[in-house]
Amino acid sequence: MSLGNTRTQKDFARKTQIAASAIALMGTTTTATAQDLTQTLPQEVGTVAPALMAYITDGLFGTVWNAETLSMRDRALVTFAAMVTRGEGAQLGEFTALALDAGVTPAELSETITHLAFYTGWGNATAAAQAMAPVYAARGASADDLPGASPDLLPLNQKAEDARQNMVQNTYGDVSQGVVDYTQEMLFLDLWLRPDLAPRDRSLVTVAGLIAAGQPEQMTFHLNRAMDNGLTQTEAGGMLAHLAFYAGWPRVFSAMPVAKEVFANRAQ
Amino acid sequence: MSLGNTRTQKDFARKTQIAASAIALMGTTTTATAQDLTQTLPQEVGTVAPALMAYITDGLFGTVWNAETLSMRDRALVTFAAMVTRGEGAQLGEFTALALDAGVTPAELSETITHLAFYTGWGNATAAAQAMAPVYAARGASADDLPGASPDLLPLNQKAEDARQNMVQNTYGDVSQGVVDYTQEMLFLDLWLRPDLAPRDRSLVTVAGLIAAGQPEQMTFHLNRAMDNGLTQTEAGGMLAHLAFYAGWPRVFSAMPVAKEVFANRAQ
Amino acid sequence: MSLGNTRTQKDFARKTQIAASAIALMGTTTTATAQDLTQTLPQEVGTVAPALMAYITDGLFGTVWNAETLSMRDRALVTFAAMVTRGEGAQLGEFTALALDAGVTPAELSETITHLAFYTGWGNATAAAQAMAPVYAARGASADDLPGASPDLLPLNQKAEDARQNMVQNTYGDVSQGVVDYTQEMLFLDLWLRPDLAPRDRSLVTVAGLIAAGQPEQMTFHLNRAMDNGLTQTEAGGMLAHLAFYAGWPRVFSAMPVAKEVFANRAQ
Repeated sequence: MSLGNTRTQKDFARKTQIAASAIALMGTTTTATAQDLTQTLPQEVGTVAPALMAYITDGLFGTVWNAETLSMRDRALVTFAAMVTRGEGAQLGEFTALALDAGVTPAELSETITHLAFYTGWGNATAAAQAMAPVYAARGASADDLPGASPDLLPLNQKAEDARQNMVQNTYGDVSQGVVDYTQEMLFLDLWLRPDLAPRDRSLVTVAGLIAAGQPEQMTFHLNRAMDNGLTQTEAGGMLAHLAFYAGWPRVFSAMPVAKEVFANRAQ
Repeated sequence: MSLGNTRTQKDFARKTQIAASAIALMGTTTTATAQDLTQTLPQEVGTVAPALMAYITDGLFGTVWNAETLSMRDRALVTFAAMVTRGEGAQLGEFTALALDAGVTPAELSETITHLAFYTGWGNATAAAQAMAPVYAARGASADDLPGASPDLLPLNQKAEDARQNMVQNTYGDVSQGVVDYTQEMLFLDLWLRPDLAPRDRSLVTVAGLIAAGQPEQMTFHLNRAMDNGLTQTEAGGMLAHLAFYAGWPRVFSAMPVAKEVFANRAQ
Repeated sequence: MSLGNTRTQKDFARKTQIAASAIALMGTTTTATAQDLTQTLPQEVGTVAPALMAYITDGLFGTVWNAETLSMRDRALVTFAAMVTRGEGAQLGEFTALALDAGVTPAELSETITHLAFYTGWGNATAAAQAMAPVYAARGASADDLPGASPDLLPLNQKAEDARQNMVQNTYGDVSQGVVDYTQEMLFLDLWLRPDLAPRDRSLVTVAGLIAAGQPEQMTFHLNRAMDNGLTQTEAGGMLAHLAFYAGWPRVFSAMPVAKEVFANRAQ
């Protein structure tokens, strides 16, 4: 495929791009390599769709994963979150290994599926656990490496939580008090305060999940929260470009106007 | 996790909540028990994410499933519908067994997947059939227990159907006459009149499917129909809280404004 | 189920409809037959839900697949695209065989998953490749039958592309330059110009994917493009009716207003 700006530059662009990718991979600061990425590619792709194989190895692995907008560690975490959200459990073992190779810890991945259980549904998280277990066993990640049920929680921003809770209670208390109560007790007074996944990463996987699930209408709150928690605009833009591949172009194009509005409002 | 209203009450709340759950389970009028719920939890969850295990056993199984807003039988049916809609066939055998234990009949589950074939797509229903077949065989549910292709249908509300059909024909006849015709002939003159799933339950699984699929824009008609068919506002609110766990929080928060508007319009 | 317009005509309608279907199948110009369709139906459906079995064999296979609005070849391609989009890989082998029997070539299916990798996410395409590989092997479809990575591309409509690119650059360049660049370089200067899937078919699977994924908000551009590329309004309407079964009624009803508006704007 063409990675230059004009079609006549195509062959030249591809050759230089492959060389550049090789260099970029050698220079990466994580332990993930082109070899690690290749493990996520089923061999049948080459048999059935050689062109898709080329797009993946040259374009996705060789270029996108090495773009400077987002670290490879974050890309692996975002990809993992998207795969969990989309229910792609059959392919998740390889992406678990990739995330671990890229520097995500077993504790962080464990917290990620716990978080996504709430944000993308229970079944996705339990299916993820089934895919992850053999990888954890092979890597020797045991219970001692994983967060327990009741860690010391991070400090709560009581004022922000009061405002959030009042808004939700006033809007939806007469629709489903259960939703209002569980949201406060289980999510905002507990899950979000668990220390073994940084708030910035917790927001990152939440936003990735919302994009992958096709729910841009829920993204404004969480993208703002992600940026409050330290995600930069460049990283958010890099995440959108990365997710175009793993969640599909239309999911990202439906999220772009929301991101544009969030960025604009924060710039004021 | 915290189930009390403040974080300092956490440990006390958990202990009393577990005791309360045990009592609630003993007092349930169905045959489903904590043991039945536990069968739906893959053991790998405990290995990979101990915190998620605690959320599920204490929070979801111990508290949510026993909330009085919705019967355990309805919760099992709603959960089954959400799992079918999300294409979670690999986990569906256990939820089939759970639904049967909770008092849903084999005939009702059979009608549920037939109904959801139309409302969430053919492949979901055929995958569900594959997951259900071994459970039915183990339980001795045979063809004699299941609805046939051509039962005597429930009486039609001709006036309401005429109004619906006229609206759809006038709006979409020039877009796709096939959609208009199949909708009337296969859905509203046939599927919805099949007697082996009560109209209230048929609506319940339809709304659960719409929430799980992320289609709140189609929910107004069906939530009104569900309440016309006997679903109470309390039950609808309980279903929303229940589905937060099985379909994910964002799906439910996108459905909440629609439910709020339906409730408000019906209260006038 | 009733396929006539009134319930009293039910039995008569079914008998004549089955006869008509048999005749229609004999007269089809493709090699796909009722036998080919039946291979896509898991036998457990008959065990667990006899009524669903009847809906599928009489209604879906006997009537819908033979409606004149869309060729059987196009129906097989649209169905394949919907199944890929929905991540129904476990059932995709049979639909691959069906598409090949209906006259879709191995090269076209290969291009279809390459295209849908971008439009519905990487994991769907790689899972599809895994399901397709044994069918290709059994049919003797080898690398020689499949498009390579760098074919001679179709001519570009430079003016239209300039307009599209300027719009996207101006709207989203400050949100994610990566999305803007990859969209041009990989999609519109490359993927869409690959010759082994006709632009009309490329648009057909794109629109089918958008409907199946529940993204009507992205459909206006692509349905217009499909019709610019030769898809007729009758075919588009037939696709909507066909997808009601494979993507579920609510997906199609959310797409209908978009189709109505596109049709109306093009008629002016």
